[in-house]
Amino acid sequence: MDTEATAARIADGDRRALARAITLVESGREDHRAQAIELLEALKRLKRQAIRIGLSGTPGVGKSTFIEAFGCSLTGRGLKVAVLAVDPSSARSGGSILGDKTRMERLSREPGAFIRPSPAQSQLGGVARRSREAIALCEAAGFDVVLIETVGVGQSETVVAEMSDLFVLLLAPAGGDELQGVKRGIMEMADLILVNKADGDLKPAATRTCADYSGALKLLRKRPQDPEGFPKAMLVSALEEEGLEKAWDEMQFLIKWRKENGFLDTIRAEQARYWFREEVRQGLLRQLETGAAKAVMERLGTEVARGEITASQAARTALARIADR
Amino acid sequence: MDTEATAARIADGDRRALARAITLVESGREDHRAQAIELLEALKRLKRQAIRIGLSGTPGVGKSTFIEAFGCSLTGRGLKVAVLAVDPSSARSGGSILGDKTRMERLSREPGAFIRPSPAQSQLGGVARRSREAIALCEAAGFDVVLIETVGVGQSETVVAEMSDLFVLLLAPAGGDELQGVKRGIMEMADLILVNKADGDLKPAATRTCADYSGALKLLRKRPQDPEGFPKAMLVSALEEEGLEKAWDEMQFLIKWRKENGFLDTIRAEQARYWFREEVRQGLLRQLETGAAKAVMERLGTEVARGEITASQAARTALARIADR
Repeated sequence: MDTEATAARIADGDRRALARAITLVESGREDHRAQAIELLEALKRLKRQAIRIGLSGTPGVGKSTFIEAFGCSLTGRGLKVAVLAVDPSSARSGGSILGDKTRMERLSREPGAFIRPSPAQSQLGGVARRSREAIALCEAAGFDVVLIETVGVGQSETVVAEMSDLFVLLLAPAGGDELQGVKRGIMEMADLILVNKADGDLKPAATRTCADYSGALKLLRKRPQDPEGFPKAMLVSALEEEGLEKAWDEMQFLIKWRKENGFLDTIRAEQARYWFREEVRQGLLRQLETGAAKAVMERLGTEVARGEITASQAARTALARIADR
Repeated sequence: MDTEATAARIADGDRRALARAITLVESGREDHRAQAIELLEALKRLKRQAIRIGLSGTPGVGKSTFIEAFGCSLTGRGLKVAVLAVDPSSARSGGSILGDKTRMERLSREPGAFIRPSPAQSQLGGVARRSREAIALCEAAGFDVVLIETVGVGQSETVVAEMSDLFVLLLAPAGGDELQGVKRGIMEMADLILVNKADGDLKPAATRTCADYSGALKLLRKRPQDPEGFPKAMLVSALEEEGLEKAWDEMQFLIKWRKENGFLDTIRAEQARYWFREEVRQGLLRQLETGAAKAVMERLGTEVARGEITASQAARTALARIADR
């Protein structure tokens, strides 16, 4: 691969070059990894930035419909929108369940939109790195907004929040008791809660749910990176395309405020540092899966399982062997 | 420390020697660590085993009252009972909230009982190793039952389940909708669900809650290590000391069945292997916090935060430097 030429094509907004570059960062091959890093370093010089919006919602809240409607409203304003997916479950389910273009037909036909499904990878660590690097590629390709969607399971929300400028939680109208269904930790990550399906029969329930969450958000400790009134809960209807512009206005306001008050840069710097550390950690642990270290781990593991040696003694021995190699 | 002499005192059931040995395994000092491992290896030769019961319950379910009543019913049968606590939050809250003797006054006065509060450590990894080693020390000291209690927050239940022969989930009576409050993953770990406070006004609610969980447990996939009818939900009243003997009968039945069918040894072997791997992983990651690696991480981390280098490139550089050292 000619790094400079590829970088130039991506910078020119060439979709095919962008798609191939994302495939490159998804690859596990060592030579691909070296190329990917070289490409990312080259593109970094452009210093292009998009608004990175993390979006989480459990199945059934209307995530695809929302992204389709919200994405089209942004392209309608002349903005270029990329949609990426962080889906740790895709390996298990045997295929991507997020970022599926057939679920967002209208948006996928928009010239200003780029949709990339989640790759089939088992490790959340791998998915995270790929997503982080795909965001950087989309920014270099000149997108104004990068939407990173995930399902509300396990650790994937934390992963997405750690690579977003703002984190949106999409919810469906619920019965009065269901407030507890959203874990406190997830609530604390949200900058904006959008209660979807505020239409037809569900409107009263949506209004009530939104009021419940507004109340709950007020009880959270105020974070320095929030202007007055944030985090905030709002009603939207993806189906009737209502509330989408207002939601976008709020997002822009929040980003602008954070930029002016220095928080946007600080948050991105801390996120970059976090991912650097995470990647080193993952890299260190990967050495246990290969070569001499793997053999040591297997042999000692068997001795531990047989009860011939304590786990503590075996761990000490293994660490000494790995350090000596 | 004279390892052989200490080992002999612990094997004799000397409480003070046991308490000191637990303090030793809690220590972070390198020389203490070496002594701890030597002591554990020496005691291993005794091949003494206790029934290891993991017990989880959120604050308010009556965990202390249950452990007090259940522990006393076991000591009343002539059994020796040790109570340990796995409390990852203790460092934050500035003191142990579990295993507090003042909350179990009657049990702490029993000659057959030994209660050890959770140490003030921040890392769940450190707490886990300490607990695992404390269990081994209690077994060597001749205890028949080791109760490992934890609160139902974060990952601590998984940690406790991974060091227990059976895992008990203690619940309080709840409204009909609150079944969702217990995460599916926790339900799937439980061998026995005890619905506490089946007394007085709460009895009807407890009975309904127990029926709800019985139904929910039946929907889970049958695990090979379970005899017919397990996992199981039961009513208890710690306050009125009702259902405790029946609960103990069920636990004994389950352990006996697993022992006869080879599952007890298999589960313990897999747990030991798991902890060995975990400890090696923790050890590898710890090197990032000290010496030359720490300096490399800090310098590169700053460059990443300043935007001078991508996280991916920095991670690659850091891993190469750490491997070279």
